[in-house]
This record gives sequence, C-alpha cells and structure tokens, in this order.
Amino acid sequence: MASEIIFEVVGKVGLITLNRSERLNAFTKTMAYELIETFDQVNNDDAIRSVVVTGAGRGFCAGADLVGGGKTFDYSKDEAHSNGKTRDTGGKVSLAIFQSKKPIVGAINGPAVGIGVTMTLPMDLRIASTKAKFGFVFTRRGVVPEAASSWFLPRIVGISQALDWVLSGRVFDAQEALAGNLVSEVIEPDLLIDRALERANQMTLGTSPVSVALARQMLWTMMGAGSPMDAHRLDSKAMVSRGRSGDAYEGIESFLQKREPNFMDLVSVDVPDLIPKLDEF
Amino acid sequence: MASEIIFEVVGKVGLITLNRSERLNAFTKTMAYELIETFDQVNNDDAIRSVVVTGAGRGFCAGADLVGGGKTFDYSKDEAHSNGKTRDTGGKVSLAIFQSKKPIVGAINGPAVGIGVTMTLPMDLRIASTKAKFGFVFTRRGVVPEAASSWFLPRIVGISQALDWVLSGRVFDAQEALAGNLVSEVIEPDLLIDRALERANQMTLGTSPVSVALARQMLWTMMGAGSPMDAHRLDSKAMVSRGRSGDAYEGIESFLQKREPNFMDLVSVDVPDLIPKLDEF
Amino acid sequence: MASEIIFEVVGKVGLITLNRSERLNAFTKTMAYELIETFDQVNNDDAIRSVVVTGAGRGFCAGADLVGGGKTFDYSKDEAHSNGKTRDTGGKVSLAIFQSKKPIVGAINGPAVGIGVTMTLPMDLRIASTKAKFGFVFTRRGVVPEAASSWFLPRIVGISQALDWVLSGRVFDAQEALAGNLVSEVIEPDLLIDRALERANQMTLGTSPVSVALARQMLWTMMGAGSPMDAHRLDSKAMVSRGRSGDAYEGIESFLQKREPNFMDLVSVDVPDLIPKLDEF
Repeated sequence: MASEIIFEVVGKVGLITLNRSERLNAFTKTMAYELIETFDQVNNDDAIRSVVVTGAGRGFCAGADLVGGGKTFDYSKDEAHSNGKTRDTGGKVSLAIFQSKKPIVGAINGPAVGIGVTMTLPMDLRIASTKAKFGFVFTRRGVVPEAASSWFLPRIVGISQALDWVLSGRVFDAQEALAGNLVSEVIEPDLLIDRALERANQMTLGTSPVSVALARQMLWTMMGAGSPMDAHRLDSKAMVSRGRSGDAYEGIESFLQKREPNFMDLVSVDVPDLIPKLDEF
Repeated sequence: MASEIIFEVVGKVGLITLNRSERLNAFTKTMAYELIETFDQVNNDDAIRSVVVTGAGRGFCAGADLVGGGKTFDYSKDEAHSNGKTRDTGGKVSLAIFQSKKPIVGAINGPAVGIGVTMTLPMDLRIASTKAKFGFVFTRRGVVPEAASSWFLPRIVGISQALDWVLSGRVFDAQEALAGNLVSEVIEPDLLIDRALERANQMTLGTSPVSVALARQMLWTMMGAGSPMDAHRLDSKAMVSRGRSGDAYEGIESFLQKREPNFMDLVSVDVPDLIPKLDEF
Repeated sequence: MASEIIFEVVGKVGLITLNRSERLNAFTKTMAYELIETFDQVNNDDAIRSVVVTGAGRGFCAGADLVGGGKTFDYSKDEAHSNGKTRDTGGKVSLAIFQSKKPIVGAINGPAVGIGVTMTLPMDLRIASTKAKFGFVFTRRGVVPEAASSWFLPRIVGISQALDWVLSGRVFDAQEALAGNLVSEVIEPDLLIDRALERANQMTLGTSPVSVALARQMLWTMMGAGSPMDAHRLDSKAMVSRGRSGDAYEGIESFLQKREPNFMDLVSVDVPDLIPKLDEF
C-alpha cells in the first residue's frame, strides 16, 4: 500500500526507505502518513525489535517538497486553519517517533535538510555516511524550525550548537555533525546500512522487549520532567508492574543460571499503561 | 547617554563595550540598566542583525563592583526589600539577553568573574581570548550563583561540570573553558573582535531577520518545556504565521531560482506574538 | 550501628564504603537505609564538608542482591503495595543524594551495575578506577531503569548515549564511561581513593559551607525548571538572604584584604529554607 516509502523486514529489524529518489526523497503529506502508519504497525508487530530509517538513491530527505513554490508553507486554505488547529505535519511524524515502543536508528546516506534532519531528532541514534549533509535551513526559507525540533535539538547537541546551526541555517557536512554530536559515527557509504542494522540489533539483543519499550518511553518522557520525583513515581510503578512479570523472573533466573534469557512477554499486549499521554493538541 | 558602556554599529552588528576599564569593567546598577536599554534598542533597530559584547582594556568584567565593601550584597535597605520583591540585578540583564530577538556573541577578552561570566550564559555563543579567565566565585564570597545561572549553566556545560565550577568557585583559564564547552573557541587577543564580528555575521547572513528572531526565542524557551508537544503547538502556530509571509514566499522562490533572497519583513513590526511571556516576578 | 556500610571521617571528608565485599557489595534494603541515614547525619555535621562513596574489595556495587531469585523484584507482598504506594528503594537513596547539602564524589573501584551505577548519578562527580565496569542492565533482567535514573542519566550523558546504554543493557568499561561523560576521569586503582578525597576537598576549599549547600541545591533543582525566571526568583531570594550574612561580609572583606576567608555560618543552622521541597510521593 505504501507508495512513497518502502518497508522491509531484515531479521528482527524493520527497514524503512524513503522512496522518492527522483526528488531526493523530498517530504510530502503522503510520506508523513505512511511513516506514521508504519511506526504504528511496528509497535504492534512483536517480530520486529527495532527500526532503521534511510533514503533511496543519493539523498536521505531534501526537506519539504517545494513543488508548490512560494506558497508551499501557506496553510491558510487548510480546513484546520479556520479553527486554529493547523498542525505542522513534520511534528506529527516526530511525535510518532518520540512515542515509539521500538528503538529507531537513522541511517543518513545523503543530504538531510529541513524536515529531512528534524524528523531524525527523536530517533535513538543517528549514523551518517561520509556523503551526508545537514541543514536546519528554515531561517533561509523565511520560516521557522519545526517538527518540535526546538525541543529536541538543544537536548541532543546543546543549546549553543543548536542556536548556531538553526539561526545561521547553513549546510554542514558529516564531520561537523559528528563533532557537534548530531550523529554518533560517520562511515563509508557502502557500509552504512549494515552498520545501522548492527546498531539496531545491538540495542535489543538479549533484552526484554517490554523492558525496552518502557525504558525508551521513560527516558524520553523524563527528559522534560521538572523533578526527579516525577521519575521516582513513574519507575516505582513500572518496577511494581514489571517486577512481578514473567520476564523479570526469567531475567533473574537466566542470569543466575548463566544462560541466555528467553523473554516471553509481548510489546503488543504486555506494556503497562504508565507513561503520561501527550496532551491533546 | 550611556556612560558605563560604549555602543557602536559595525556594519550590521551592534558592538557593546563594557567601559569601566579602570575597574576591570566591574558591574554596577548603572551598567545593568544601560545594557538592558541597549538590548531593547537593538531589538527595535532593523539595521542591526546581531550583537557582540566585549570589555574595554584588559578585563571583560571583574564581577560586581565591591567598592561598597562587605555590605555590597546587603539589600536590606532597598525599597523593594520590605515587600519581598528585591530582584537580583544581574538576573534582569540575563533575562533581557534571554529574550533578545537578535543573536548575541560574547567576546571575552580578559577576566570574566561572577556576574562577569554569568551574564554571558544566555548569549548564543562565547569566544575567548587566550587571556580570558573565568570564575563562578560566589561560594568564595559567601553568596550564591545569580543571574539565573543555576538554570543556564547546567544546560550549557552539563550538570557535573557546572557543579565543579560553581561549588569550588575556583578561577580557571580559557583552555579549561574550551574543554568544558563554556566557550566555543579560544583565539589570540588581537583577533578576538574580528572573529566575534565574523561569527555574529555568520549567524544572520542570508537569513530572514524575523525567522532568526522567532527561532532564537523558540529554542531558548523550549529548553525548559516539559514536552515536545509544547514545541509542536508553538511551531505549528509559528509555521502558520510565517508560512504565508512575504519572507517565506521570497525564501522559497529565491532558493528555486538559485539566487540570494531579499527578505523584507521587519523584526520591529513583523514578529508574531507567540512566545509565552516570562511570568511576572 | 551501620552494618552494611563503613563510615569514616578523613579530614573534612566523610568516606562511605559499601561493605558487603563477599557479595560485590550487592544492594539491600538495609544498605539503602544506612546510606540515607548517613547522608542525613552528614548534612547535620558541620565538621564534614563533602563525601566520597566507594566499595570494599573488588566491586563497587553489583546491583540489587538477587539472593531472592526470580521473585527479587516482586513487591506484591509488600505492605505499601495494596494502596499503590510502593516506592522503589533505590530511588529513595537517589533522592537523598539529590537533596544533599554537601558535595558527593563517587569513587568507582570496580563493577557498578544496576542500582550500583544508578545510585551514583545524583552525585556531583564520578571518577573510576581502570577496573571499573558499568551496566544499566535492567532490560536484561526483564525490569526497568530505576532510582530516578530516567531523569538523571540523560541530563548527565545526553539522551542518545543514555538510550544506547539503557536499552541495550550491555556492560561497558571505564574508558567507554569516560568517553560518554559518565565519569570525569579514569585512574589506576591504587590512586583512586586519594584522588577522590582530593577532588572532594577541591570542591569545598576556601568556600562558605552554606553557599556550597545552597548552590548545590539550586543547580540540581533548576535542572528541571521550566524557565530561567524560576531561577531568577530563587536566586533573588537567596542573594537577599545570604547577601546580608556574616559569610558575605567575610567573603568580600577577605577578598579585598587579599587573605583567606574565615567563614563562620553553619550548614546545620544557617541554610535558608528556599529550595522547594520535593512533592509528596
């Protein structure tokens, strides 16, 4: 059904490829909804432990498709506009990634510009090909950073680096992205996908899928919490819930018996409902 | 009118020089109000795109002027004191910088101690001369970190580095400031101002002034936000507002036509009122 | 009285040694309450300026004692469980450290796993022996990160590094901990305690004890604050309170007279009640 992305399963990893290579995978509303639907599908598929996102051809994602010209970002004819409920499309994708129950690795194979880079910020880690380029180009297009990047970027690279990249809107290469902690490694283009799959597998190997789902959501959610008491309340409940689970029993017993664990609890059914939902828009 | 600072315009950059060189530019209430007034003036002057702050002579700012001796920080005779409304003067300067609509670069030419360093924390970036020295010396004077530095510093250099510098109150050199991410580069004294002007210009070259103003305020404000949903709400509104602007049209069309943009919207009149005001004190 | 920890005073430093070396100092409820009691005692002992925490024998702390087997984390028989008030024990220790009025240095001499590492996150700094090992192993035991680590860890090492270590649950060595900013230095085992004591002394030498107590609590508390205005309100009050203190007078006068200060105010009685209490659980 998906027409602007390709979704494959490689072992236990879901591999999403942005697939509009003739436009450097420029972002569209169709692509956005296909991504959101795919992340939702992954959350409910217990055979998939993690996700890699990459781009077809020589680009990762060149940003919003500007085929509409100067009026591309003019939402005044949108249905939602009249009631002040217009929501940034990139932000919907970012928030779907933020709430993912599986770790997500960005494999940035080429230019990642505008929403092409901001959509990767809620991913768990980003690795780049030597051919990757990055640009938070919003100020050069007369608009503003979106996809909730004003929340994510300073938390990932620090406020000074975030201001430098976002205010200037300049394009920079993979080495600068590495030096600024936007990506965790830079490797040869030919090795990118294999390395991304390896990292995705490393983040789940030998772990309880339900524990990974909860831990991921706990860390991201508590990044915004006002006090460690918020975390203490949340992890106390989570420990009570998971501490008596079959996975906890198996995790401890397998460790004491020095054997590999065999976790049986399922993300699709066993994740307790403890993480505060994002407020209504 | 200003008597304790010098304000000049160098191209598109406003250059502020703290000007009490006979006292290593020690901070006074007069200096504070002159700074706040100047930042306000810059926000409303569309010819100025960014700001550099430096010090006259061999110091940047030696901290609060201690000419009052042991009673320097005794506010009990202040008018505001009786109703519990005494506000730290350094904090007023910090919050003015925090809310600036133009990027601000600190060019730290010599000792920056106490309020001399905490006032630079809300600036977008800091560069230091090899002769700069730094000290969060509050614990050695029997007082506490001020100018809202307990909020800014851990977000810039990390909580462990912040604790080390603030609890010990020790003075450290430019290389340690660089290693700890307090400054982004250290250069020869003769080159400092030119480099600061260059960096200030880089942060605005080819960008929409209104986009820079909004982006700056979005990033700093969202550093404190509890959830990416706060950013999603804010950037959705900002995209609706700026997406239909003349600058957005020009930004996209100039990009498609591979020419330099000519942005016409003005910070003095066109910045939408979207950033939550700081609460009343 | 303490049976599972040793508490000694070395000069002005309180030295806590986790003391179940036959179990690699595995964590128990007894150890937790002894730690909390000791931190409380240190807060009220004006002869002690800072604290070092280390482990006896070859381990730092191997995590929760799993002598209870697969049911170790099953709290369903706890008294508090029936009313939903079960609190994670590790979190109680973490919050006691978070609220400490004295700086605390972790001297990690060997394996620090599970609660063995998460309890060190609210410490002011961590230094490691070359023999230290670390593991946020919760996902491999079928449970979740605890001790409020979902709040602390991303603020110390960044969200991407935190996700990588916590989701994978893998064990890593001291060099990786250093590269990822979990520890500030790695040194030879024989030198660890002396270096930890040296660092603890450095953080308090020549400083006002009350200023250090307040500054520590201000920095940690404001890490979670939504706005610099929160810090401005707090530090205005703290400056009013401490600015007229004997320590402020002495701090300024001794500086002007170029002599060492002799601070007389006492943490046990003179710390103003300005830091918001942690909410009730």
